[in-house]
Amino acid sequence: MLTISKRGTIMPASPIRRLVPYAEAAKRKGTRVYHLNIGQPDIKTPEVAIESMHNLDLKVIEYSHSAGNESYRKKLAEYYQTIGIQINSNQLMVTTGGSEAISLTFLSCLDPGDEVIVPEPFYANYYGFASSTSVKVVPLTSDIDSGFALPSFTEIEKLITPRTKAIFICNPNNPTGYLYTREELEQLKEIVIKHNIYLFSDEVYREFCYDGATHTSVMELEGLDEHAVMIDSVSKRFSECGLRIGMLVTRNQAILETALKFAQARLSPPSLGQIAGEASLNTPNDYFVEVNTEYNKRRNFLVEELNKIPGVYTPMPKGAFYTVAKLPVDDADKFCQWILSDFSYKNQTVMMAPASGFYITPGKGIDEVRIAYVLNIDDLRNAIETLREALSVYPGRTNR
Amino acid sequence: MLTISKRGTIMPASPIRRLVPYAEAAKRKGTRVYHLNIGQPDIKTPEVAIESMHNLDLKVIEYSHSAGNESYRKKLAEYYQTIGIQINSNQLMVTTGGSEAISLTFLSCLDPGDEVIVPEPFYANYYGFASSTSVKVVPLTSDIDSGFALPSFTEIEKLITPRTKAIFICNPNNPTGYLYTREELEQLKEIVIKHNIYLFSDEVYREFCYDGATHTSVMELEGLDEHAVMIDSVSKRFSECGLRIGMLVTRNQAILETALKFAQARLSPPSLGQIAGEASLNTPNDYFVEVNTEYNKRRNFLVEELNKIPGVYTPMPKGAFYTVAKLPVDDADKFCQWILSDFSYKNQTVMMAPASGFYITPGKGIDEVRIAYVLNIDDLRNAIETLREALSVYPGRTNR
Repeated sequence: MLTISKRGTIMPASPIRRLVPYAEAAKRKGTRVYHLNIGQPDIKTPEVAIESMHNLDLKVIEYSHSAGNESYRKKLAEYYQTIGIQINSNQLMVTTGGSEAISLTFLSCLDPGDEVIVPEPFYANYYGFASSTSVKVVPLTSDIDSGFALPSFTEIEKLITPRTKAIFICNPNNPTGYLYTREELEQLKEIVIKHNIYLFSDEVYREFCYDGATHTSVMELEGLDEHAVMIDSVSKRFSECGLRIGMLVTRNQAILETALKFAQARLSPPSLGQIAGEASLNTPNDYFVEVNTEYNKRRNFLVEELNKIPGVYTPMPKGAFYTVAKLPVDDADKFCQWILSDFSYKNQTVMMAPASGFYITPGKGIDEVRIAYVLNIDDLRNAIETLREALSVYPGRTNR
Repeated sequence: MLTISKRGTIMPASPIRRLVPYAEAAKRKGTRVYHLNIGQPDIKTPEVAIESMHNLDLKVIEYSHSAGNESYRKKLAEYYQTIGIQINSNQLMVTTGGSEAISLTFLSCLDPGDEVIVPEPFYANYYGFASSTSVKVVPLTSDIDSGFALPSFTEIEKLITPRTKAIFICNPNNPTGYLYTREELEQLKEIVIKHNIYLFSDEVYREFCYDGATHTSVMELEGLDEHAVMIDSVSKRFSECGLRIGMLVTRNQAILETALKFAQARLSPPSLGQIAGEASLNTPNDYFVEVNTEYNKRRNFLVEELNKIPGVYTPMPKGAFYTVAKLPVDDADKFCQWILSDFSYKNQTVMMAPASGFYITPGKGIDEVRIAYVLNIDDLRNAIETLREALSVYPGRTNR
């Protein structure tokens, strides 16, 4: 018998994906399933992007430069400059989604067995990229009771070993919606300089900040030119998840040169996606104002309503379009399955992401779920009502 | 000082890419450079593919299924059935180019340090994918004097160690144009069954076979369902390299399930590319007949003319659109640079890929180049004339 790889065997399947068959079964029974589990925005892609395909003027769909089309890189640099990130077109490369930007960053900065410290809970796919590149994720546990703020300098330093090569944050954060303050970033800066390690920052939700809060990019911190790598993507900003276009941004030329060698092996990022991505940079500003206003409304509604449910607690996230909520249940994995398979209210049910998938410390997040507010207010209202009813009858309810 | 990764440091830059500045300098001087170095066909993308973008009917460019759109997978299965590969839509997944199909195959079947045997010379980027996934490439050297045929059973077996997990061929071959015979494939089958290892086959040049030669897919070999993985791509078949759409095809469900776990981390292959790729399956058959006729003409012309040059030898390739030629030079790397930087004939020069980049055995291929016939006959004629003149005056000429 042929065996598959050990790394493939131990690679966990996502707890969300485990739930898919239950959601499908519920739909087959005629139950409406509200998807609070997903990161796919319901917002329209800007028209300029779609039009760039309608007007596509190519005879041959060729490879692009391995670092992306020069015209696109130049426009991206201009865009970053307008938002206070002073970089030029030689300080970034276009990648196949933010996903690939992360893999290329890991490959360029870390060797197999090297460690990257990641605040936990974290975007589950980081673990996948670490696994593909043989990098070890060391979790820095943050807590719902402190609103998922960055742990102290001392707590972070405790995790640093001779194999530690980087700290990797997601800001604003998926899954928590937490927005790191400038003070927290200055603290991280102090640590990475002191220990001579990298600071990677996934900033794909940059545009999604609320209550007038300002996003601070790692690229804005003085004295971090050699240390800082920013991961970016068009997916959330323009609601173009399917383009698979991301960016790796850094002033450290050695990283870019190394990443390019790995990127050359895969030849180029998607050509059509780059054309649509470049066109998207002409999106009128109204688009973002409208999107931001809409998400802000949804967030306020969701958080307020969730906290009204007895035993439920969620902090007020300042960014992205997710929140992590604590539920009065024995096990959120079981509850998320039960609500799909054994429960419905007014012929409706809810799909949520059990937070256990965002932690690697065993036992953490056991009573937490991630809720995305990518549904309109009416749907959110129905979803929360359904959740409230479900919690009131769930057999595994606790009295927390 | 922060250091980049060791794997990034040792990752070789391509010898072709080293030549790019010399080609650019020649162009700046007004010299016409014939590109015999590239794998980007000059053939037009089928109109149905471009039209699918002109008619794009989407409001949101969403993620697709991580294994690719179901409609596309179904049509792909139908296509494979028409060419004698009996698989269904659950026996394949859509990937981000053939490149990603290779990486996912390595990740799913091999652990870090495991070995894959690859006939040499081989497509240089295989080394890049092996490096990204910490897999070791073991070269099986083939020789220009035997037309790059597969070495004997005994030669292959000599390379098998306890860490050997797979043999990986490219058929038809890039860079040699060699088309493996059914007998050679049967021999490989015997070896992989005897040693209980995998057989990976990159078949992206399947449509490019000449002289009525038939391509044999690993998927057609009986009794290899657990062992065989086919890598495929739309890039060459439809001249759509920029779509970044490939396929991983196997009847081994454990491989597909494992590959899917890694693929889920990067969410989905490009959505626009999948739409264009699906539309491309409606390309009228005339398109392929025309393309094949054109390449056949170019190949015959190129090989005949090359062999007329004193001291030059190239075998007659039966597939793909490359050939490897032996030149009467001390060092093909130096010669390929010299012809760009120090030579021109009628204000023309030639860019070729030194074959050293396709070998990892030190010293192999030192007097060989890869020549792609992706130019029209008139350009090929001028290019070969230029090469002939260059060889007659090159200071490092040998008298082989």
